[in-house]
Amino acid sequence: MIQRPRGTRDFGPDEMERRRYFEFIMREQCHRFGFREIATPIFEHTELFTTKSGPGIVEELYSFKDKGDRDIALRPELTASVVRFFVNELATLPRPLKVFYFGQMFRYERPQSGRYREFFQFGAELFGNPLPESDAEIIGLACSMLERTGLQEYQVRIGHIGILRGKLTDAGIAPEAAQPILQKLDKKAYPEAEELMRAAGVDAEHMQEIVRITGTIGGAEVLDGFEGEAAQHLRQVISILASYGYTKVKIDLGVVRGLAYYTGMVFEADAPKLGAEKQICGGGSYSLSELFGGEKVFSTGFAIGFDRTLLAIEKEGSMAPAFGLDAYVVATSDAMRPTAFQVVAELRRSGLMADVDLMRRSLGKNFKYADAVHVRRVVIIGEKEMEQGSATIRDMATGQQTLVPLEELARALLKMRE
Amino acid sequence: MIQRPRGTRDFGPDEMERRRYFEFIMREQCHRFGFREIATPIFEHTELFTTKSGPGIVEELYSFKDKGDRDIALRPELTASVVRFFVNELATLPRPLKVFYFGQMFRYERPQSGRYREFFQFGAELFGNPLPESDAEIIGLACSMLERTGLQEYQVRIGHIGILRGKLTDAGIAPEAAQPILQKLDKKAYPEAEELMRAAGVDAEHMQEIVRITGTIGGAEVLDGFEGEAAQHLRQVISILASYGYTKVKIDLGVVRGLAYYTGMVFEADAPKLGAEKQICGGGSYSLSELFGGEKVFSTGFAIGFDRTLLAIEKEGSMAPAFGLDAYVVATSDAMRPTAFQVVAELRRSGLMADVDLMRRSLGKNFKYADAVHVRRVVIIGEKEMEQGSATIRDMATGQQTLVPLEELARALLKMRE
Repeated sequence: MIQRPRGTRDFGPDEMERRRYFEFIMREQCHRFGFREIATPIFEHTELFTTKSGPGIVEELYSFKDKGDRDIALRPELTASVVRFFVNELATLPRPLKVFYFGQMFRYERPQSGRYREFFQFGAELFGNPLPESDAEIIGLACSMLERTGLQEYQVRIGHIGILRGKLTDAGIAPEAAQPILQKLDKKAYPEAEELMRAAGVDAEHMQEIVRITGTIGGAEVLDGFEGEAAQHLRQVISILASYGYTKVKIDLGVVRGLAYYTGMVFEADAPKLGAEKQICGGGSYSLSELFGGEKVFSTGFAIGFDRTLLAIEKEGSMAPAFGLDAYVVATSDAMRPTAFQVVAELRRSGLMADVDLMRRSLGKNFKYADAVHVRRVVIIGEKEMEQGSATIRDMATGQQTLVPLEELARALLKMRE
Repeated sequence: MIQRPRGTRDFGPDEMERRRYFEFIMREQCHRFGFREIATPIFEHTELFTTKSGPGIVEELYSFKDKGDRDIALRPELTASVVRFFVNELATLPRPLKVFYFGQMFRYERPQSGRYREFFQFGAELFGNPLPESDAEIIGLACSMLERTGLQEYQVRIGHIGILRGKLTDAGIAPEAAQPILQKLDKKAYPEAEELMRAAGVDAEHMQEIVRITGTIGGAEVLDGFEGEAAQHLRQVISILASYGYTKVKIDLGVVRGLAYYTGMVFEADAPKLGAEKQICGGGSYSLSELFGGEKVFSTGFAIGFDRTLLAIEKEGSMAPAFGLDAYVVATSDAMRPTAFQVVAELRRSGLMADVDLMRRSLGKNFKYADAVHVRRVVIIGEKEMEQGSATIRDMATGQQTLVPLEELARALLKMRE
């Protein structure tokens, strides 16, 4: 027996239906927000990912040489690819440009609960608009996608990288020295952050204030007393989100996201039911297009971990609508089989999900099979009924049988489905 | 500028909408036939593909060692993965088991028109039923998927590998010697096929008949005179397809499909408008599960080349429905912006595709943007109208403006969409 590679998954019919259902409603939500889908290849030149994230990323990549000796890697995330596509081809489209994507990503890491080597993400990016409106729209889309899934328990925490960066500048720290400190603060590694600050010459008062800021959590009122552009931007984002009607958001200035390309607003969403691996969404505003040879363009976006979101929904006991075939057509004799094939073809053309006995089974065995594959109604094509041009519809839940003229079968079944 | 890898594609918003539209209707068609979707990983152990197709396949694979020194390859097709999944996990489900898949495949070959290194396939497999009903159902599904796309010009050619294999056996050829001959016949390489047959000791009469068989093309009547199980099986397949109502099918005993694992019915579909690369679908009944450690199970299936099918549709000038936003909400002053955000949130919750001015543009510039991104109606939130609790809907096609109470906006826009 050949097994699938470690850290990957196969999805059977039930699981796949559930996944496609949630994929569909999340995609629909993107469309409702005026975001349009784009797609990029599964693999890219490795350089794309090292340019964005530094050479360290290679350790996590599925990277290899192709037969033309090019350095290729399976994509570990999609923002780099989307920005590449934007710079090379989409930069001339009207702005703001609102795009989303859905697909597989790959990381070579230790598989564990909710972490796979092949995993799925939804993401959205908005290009070309530096106003707080853009950040609010991006957070609003993330909230509404989670809302549409039916997930009850989640929390969106919004920060602004500019507030801590500003304080570090006030304390006399150069941007290059600030980045490692921010990374420690992002991981709530306070002793290490303090050590770095002390070494960089930050005084005790500034240090205390910086640590205090990372603990600033709550409603819009926690921003009272913060001055400057960053806090003002954040106030406006929160105010627009209130107009939109999203309630599961709060300010958390401890959200730092330790990557240098973030420029302003940063946010994360957690589903507490997931325990240690509770983060299901992360994003913020960034500046990357200039790295890939384009003009500097204000960009803001996020990615939702599709697998973890489904896991959180599952833990809450919420379900996708159950699958079931509308009809299963059975002939009671060989002479009736051609009619059964005609009937099922007609039902399918009417938009019904319908199957037909392909095994020449007895009526009893067909009922058993129909039950096993979740058939709602069996259509019995019998010789006697056919003499009157009719067939019998049997409701598999109630056992009730109805005689229906052939030409009305599709309409009757469509009506029963309502 | 970093480019995407050779032979791969990026899909922009218009192209992606078109692709998702056709993907959706083809998936829906599978559901109507009672096939259920499954999914397997993008990469597999290389051994899976060499076990199925022989070591020669490695030349076409994107294969590499992962960081755990395992031989891994991007999937070049999906039947091997589906059969692996079937053997390992799905074999206990009720039979016939009807599954389908859709996704990316990868082959390292020279990119050319309609051939990419990353390409997309739809496919379906039916397990556990050796009757002609199964083959007819599989061909019927392929036909109906192509029919649903609106493709006009295509032709389905159905053969049976057993007829030529039988004749070669009659001529005294052992199965191992027959396979290379069948491969030459598959490629219509008659001189080379004849040379192989002559070398194997086939007499002139048998040779002539074998070549004649590969030219047998037409309706069910061309099978007259053929005896044996294979021809009988094919007659029944054709008869069921007639009951189903598919007319673009014909018998073509020259369809051989040069792979040893095919066991009976084989078929292909062509779109002549595509020229040399005209094949858009191929399949047949096969036996593979025993190769992967399972029991021998009768299997039949096909794959449709999604990219080539779309290319064929495009060449016929057929289009997917055009994209357009239902509404774009614009405030005429800063004071009206919070209302505009509330309104767009309400429209989106009602299921409309709606956007809002995120750039604080003037009304004139907003109309221009609305035109550029295909907005059907602009909702204007003005101070005067708001005093009466109303907003103006402007139809972008006709320029007609209507005053509508706020609480009726969503209903009015939903009605206008019909």
